[in-house]
Amino acid sequence: MKLVSYRRNGVPEFGAVKEDGVVVLSARLSRVPDLASLLADEVALQEARRIAAQSQVDFPLDTVDLEPVIPRPAKIICVGINYVAHAAEAGRTVGKYPVIFHRFAETLLAHGAPLVRPTVSDNFDFEAELAVVIGKGGAHISPEDAMSHVAGYTCFNDASIRDWQFHTHQYGMGKNFRGTGALGPWLVTADEIPDYRQLSIQGVLNGEVLQTGSLSELAFDIPALISYVSQALDWQPGDILATGTPSGIGFKRQPPIFLKPGDKFDVMVPGVGTLSNPVADEARAVNAK
Amino acid sequence: MKLVSYRRNGVPEFGAVKEDGVVVLSARLSRVPDLASLLADEVALQEARRIAAQSQVDFPLDTVDLEPVIPRPAKIICVGINYVAHAAEAGRTVGKYPVIFHRFAETLLAHGAPLVRPTVSDNFDFEAELAVVIGKGGAHISPEDAMSHVAGYTCFNDASIRDWQFHTHQYGMGKNFRGTGALGPWLVTADEIPDYRQLSIQGVLNGEVLQTGSLSELAFDIPALISYVSQALDWQPGDILATGTPSGIGFKRQPPIFLKPGDKFDVMVPGVGTLSNPVADEARAVNAK
Repeated sequence: MKLVSYRRNGVPEFGAVKEDGVVVLSARLSRVPDLASLLADEVALQEARRIAAQSQVDFPLDTVDLEPVIPRPAKIICVGINYVAHAAEAGRTVGKYPVIFHRFAETLLAHGAPLVRPTVSDNFDFEAELAVVIGKGGAHISPEDAMSHVAGYTCFNDASIRDWQFHTHQYGMGKNFRGTGALGPWLVTADEIPDYRQLSIQGVLNGEVLQTGSLSELAFDIPALISYVSQALDWQPGDILATGTPSGIGFKRQPPIFLKPGDKFDVMVPGVGTLSNPVADEARAVNAK
Repeated sequence: MKLVSYRRNGVPEFGAVKEDGVVVLSARLSRVPDLASLLADEVALQEARRIAAQSQVDFPLDTVDLEPVIPRPAKIICVGINYVAHAAEAGRTVGKYPVIFHRFAETLLAHGAPLVRPTVSDNFDFEAELAVVIGKGGAHISPEDAMSHVAGYTCFNDASIRDWQFHTHQYGMGKNFRGTGALGPWLVTADEIPDYRQLSIQGVLNGEVLQTGSLSELAFDIPALISYVSQALDWQPGDILATGTPSGIGFKRQPPIFLKPGDKFDVMVPGVGTLSNPVADEARAVNAK
């Protein structure tokens, strides 16, 4: 099942996607406040499957305003240099522990929305990633039990402001610019992906494939990442785990390639979906909103 | 004016503190949903001042369950090695840009609540800090205009799991453990602090002063920090900026001092308040909550 969060006439709803249309779930499961809550509720999720299978689509997908799959996840946990080939291009080796950094939910944008090249930098780079959406929450999760906490998968573009990323030894600033974390278009529920390691990923700039990887190449696999983070923080329904990007980013190319207005970047994960975003310049600063 | 968020009989409210009591503001300003919203609303804030001045206290402060001053800030921006003496003890120099890292709101705890020493580490260290609470939001704020975005000040303990902080070159994991970010007890509105650089700060473990600093010593001052971050992200009402910790942390002492159950750590900022928290061990892991 493919699940989306969206707005129709400004009102937040969620639904299932089939045949290029949306079956509204929120109105038919009114006890469930949002998609994150649905993912944590096994009974409601079964009901959603039944509704999605039995209902006609209510309207075409392109008539709604998609939101990032989970509009306001409590946390977005990102993993750096988690493909060996990307670690090499970044001049790093894979160590004993995963390199974790954090994104705030307010940096997210939906499929189709413009990635924002900031006023203060033109070092705007792409990072195609597979993202995990957490279903059942929990703490101190063992690797063996971790996959039972995965609700599904979606595509993520961890777009990064490279010069700001390296202003200091801490990445966070360059990973937390407004309008830089694209997430979508939908999540595919975990039952449709029997083994995520069979998935492949591509990062495609204006039709040209610049990044390729296989999810079997992760230095720290999804169970290990879920388990590691859960020692520190409780996973919550709708939390996002971005699993890292394969080699081929723009910054390390000769000459470098950076995103600019008019570009389009696609994150393609066959079996999950294609996340596509144009690039636009940040509107000129408004001092106080 | 001192402002607090708290729960009474489980219901979230906010109010003003005077004479060890609380004047309820939320019920008297029912159009204002929470304290963060109050901070962004100059008219409501004036009304709050009038109400606080004219009303008797409704109940003693110690009869409510305090929340972290802002219970769920959209973001908590932390600054590393921002006192020169602390940079020296950490083996770092102050560079051209501030060292920024991020905390998730779910790591916060209130004044009086136990700081949680995690199951997976006993390297549990303290960091006394002054925190800024943002009032008026905005993007691309100039340093000259930055102080007009400050609603007030509170105390913060950026308690850190040192071994996890240094698992990799990125701090974030060790700065985002459950129950480690104490914030409170209240915020003091900016009008009562004509010049924050006159403030001093102490970190006190079981009555012994281990950290001392003056806010005049910040390598990157509050206007510079607000301005820098605002190039990347819009400040929002209720956002927290933690300004860094002075020298004297436990980790760098010989022998090291770490927090353990039964300890009490106070962050004292005369003119702002004293944030006091006991330390407790994490309850044994519950696999799925």
